[in-house]
Amino acid sequence: MTDVQRTTESLVEVARSARLAGRSLSALPVEKRNAILMAVAEALEESSSEIVAANKRDCERVRGEVSQAFFDRLQTDEEGVADMATKVRAVAKLPDPLGETISVTSLASDLTLHKVTCPLGLIGIIFESRPDVIPQVSALCLKSGNAVILKGGTEAAETNTLLAKVWQQVLGESGLPEEAVNLIHTREDVSALLRLEGLIDLIIPRGSKDFVNYIATHSSIPVLGHGEGICHIYVDEQADLEKAWNIATDAKTSYPAACNAVETILVHERVATVFLPEMLSRFRSAGVEVRGCDRTRALLDPQSIVSASDNDWQQEYSDLIISIKVVDSFDEAVEHIDRYGSRHTEAIITENRDTAERFMTVVDAAGVYHNASTRFADGFRYGLGAEIGISTSKLHARGPVGLQGLVTYKYKLFGNGHTVG
Amino acid sequence: MTDVQRTTESLVEVARSARLAGRSLSALPVEKRNAILMAVAEALEESSSEIVAANKRDCERVRGEVSQAFFDRLQTDEEGVADMATKVRAVAKLPDPLGETISVTSLASDLTLHKVTCPLGLIGIIFESRPDVIPQVSALCLKSGNAVILKGGTEAAETNTLLAKVWQQVLGESGLPEEAVNLIHTREDVSALLRLEGLIDLIIPRGSKDFVNYIATHSSIPVLGHGEGICHIYVDEQADLEKAWNIATDAKTSYPAACNAVETILVHERVATVFLPEMLSRFRSAGVEVRGCDRTRALLDPQSIVSASDNDWQQEYSDLIISIKVVDSFDEAVEHIDRYGSRHTEAIITENRDTAERFMTVVDAAGVYHNASTRFADGFRYGLGAEIGISTSKLHARGPVGLQGLVTYKYKLFGNGHTVG
Repeated sequence: MTDVQRTTESLVEVARSARLAGRSLSALPVEKRNAILMAVAEALEESSSEIVAANKRDCERVRGEVSQAFFDRLQTDEEGVADMATKVRAVAKLPDPLGETISVTSLASDLTLHKVTCPLGLIGIIFESRPDVIPQVSALCLKSGNAVILKGGTEAAETNTLLAKVWQQVLGESGLPEEAVNLIHTREDVSALLRLEGLIDLIIPRGSKDFVNYIATHSSIPVLGHGEGICHIYVDEQADLEKAWNIATDAKTSYPAACNAVETILVHERVATVFLPEMLSRFRSAGVEVRGCDRTRALLDPQSIVSASDNDWQQEYSDLIISIKVVDSFDEAVEHIDRYGSRHTEAIITENRDTAERFMTVVDAAGVYHNASTRFADGFRYGLGAEIGISTSKLHARGPVGLQGLVTYKYKLFGNGHTVG
Repeated sequence: MTDVQRTTESLVEVARSARLAGRSLSALPVEKRNAILMAVAEALEESSSEIVAANKRDCERVRGEVSQAFFDRLQTDEEGVADMATKVRAVAKLPDPLGETISVTSLASDLTLHKVTCPLGLIGIIFESRPDVIPQVSALCLKSGNAVILKGGTEAAETNTLLAKVWQQVLGESGLPEEAVNLIHTREDVSALLRLEGLIDLIIPRGSKDFVNYIATHSSIPVLGHGEGICHIYVDEQADLEKAWNIATDAKTSYPAACNAVETILVHERVATVFLPEMLSRFRSAGVEVRGCDRTRALLDPQSIVSASDNDWQQEYSDLIISIKVVDSFDEAVEHIDRYGSRHTEAIITENRDTAERFMTVVDAAGVYHNASTRFADGFRYGLGAEIGISTSKLHARGPVGLQGLVTYKYKLFGNGHTVG
């Protein structure tokens, strides 16, 4: 038996126990689920110094071996733990996603069909170094009646183990199976996890685009996540250019590494001569490199603008770089977005409401915006209360995903001996 | 260049034109979409003799080379065509699945987020011999604003070509691109179709379990369908046995080949001695072969009851065969269903409403029934008006799927120059 086979066998047992534990959660009234969340928040605060000490040991072990950005994500302190507790309490305050009646249909006398929301079952979450993922996603899973298997980065092993222990203790003290929250550690565990089709209902990878793509192509379990965010702003011929300049600057510069940052600006030829020089000047003051199509370069200074190639249109820069293209028409803009966009978030700047409505109808993306920055695509800004991820898939959950991405529905049919014959 | 590469290249062009055509459909008011459906129904009736003649030629070509059941599914007549027209008109009468507002949230002054239903985009449908699939699914796709690529069995080539031509003519006469409905023919086409990730949004295979599994494992495009239907009836200790006998007989014998037929009966030990003999006698009168666990056999005549093995618990007989298992408890029944069920439809027979509610909460299946036959799991019976398929997946669409399985949602954000900074 290979290591992976052995790991798979033991993980099958973990998954079976977790499903069983999930069944207990699914039948728990919301008051009880919320009480557990409040107790977890308190337990986190009580264990704060222990958690910070474990985190210090994790940090010491990898200091100098990882990038500063990585180290910053790994590190936490008393304030970080307090923040974890606050976020768990926030989930307790969200409305119950379970048992919501979507429709009721009477099929015959005394035979009634209820379409009702219910948990997915068992969720697998694979994340990199941030330890605050554990309380956040465990809270969302518990609230939605799902069991969870968590796989964190090995760098955060001590912190993660302690955080998971706090959860399990509270579950145990509440008379619930601790197996509702499970932490796994090794790479073999991940390979094994990806094979548990039929036992795990959904995998949520949190990390880089390559990481998400790797998970999606190596498992036939459904994956919720987003590969990339190639977002556009189309500046229409009837745009208010002041709005266009402000929104484009915000969408590029307020957080260039975010997936909802803009990567390409499409500008209608009728406004390009006025729009481009001021846009260039604003981008330059903000330290943004501008790459342009031939017409853009001709309207500015061809010497100082890098020529944008087909590669630029399909690239998520995640950096202070922007590509600009002049288009002949609305249709050309829509066609460009359909070909190169990642179906994440697309914006139109126009004062013509009909043109905006048409854009928002025909453009295929999770978010279609009129006169607003693409940076609004975020679960907290959307009022979801908490975000489990952003989905660029069109099935099940789309765009920023909160609790509703962790539930499905079932049809409950209440009869009295009914047969179809 | 290989044949498949060449086919893929030409199919990419088909898919791009289809997406473009879909964009026109998505912006069409529902009155216009319905008018096209009514015109298609009329055109089908007008072309009836032509369609029947084409079908005769198809039938002649394969007569004697295919099974009688296959031949019966392929064959149609004037009445069959009239029925197609009726079903297209029925889709026209269904409520509009597009543009339904799921929620409205005010994010700031003058900044409003609308969550609105919209088409998926481009659907690929792969089906076997029944020609009536073309008008049925094309109607559902058009109503939901989706373009469609259809691949039917080569045996029905002439019939299918004519049916697709009728659709395309009506589209053309209505000023819409004919590319909204496309028919492809060869096996190479199917291989190519399965590779069009990013262009095709959903594949719906209609056919045998093996066929559906083949499609699902050979494409990374999402698939809507069901692999199998292993449905159970659990006869609780507080069951009304008359209801149990009636429902079990109906669920097995009214249409054994259906995916919603029951395959295994789980019976609580406290009622097994009374339940089993009468059940056996009813099954025998209906020509059903009974296979039993050791306890079932001991309670009946061990000589005459085939012993059920682990294989039986995981088998969809699709035939007049049933397996029966005696269980110690409610929990053992639920555990058996979790391990062997296909998450399709599961029923409990009991007079105890609390037990029923518990079963319906903890059993993980698209349909959970109280005192009713599993055979009710059907889009028409559920009042969906038309069925595109049944899904045993938990994401997106679950159970019998009508128009709502062909739409997703998008977030429309209406601003007035809003930035996040």
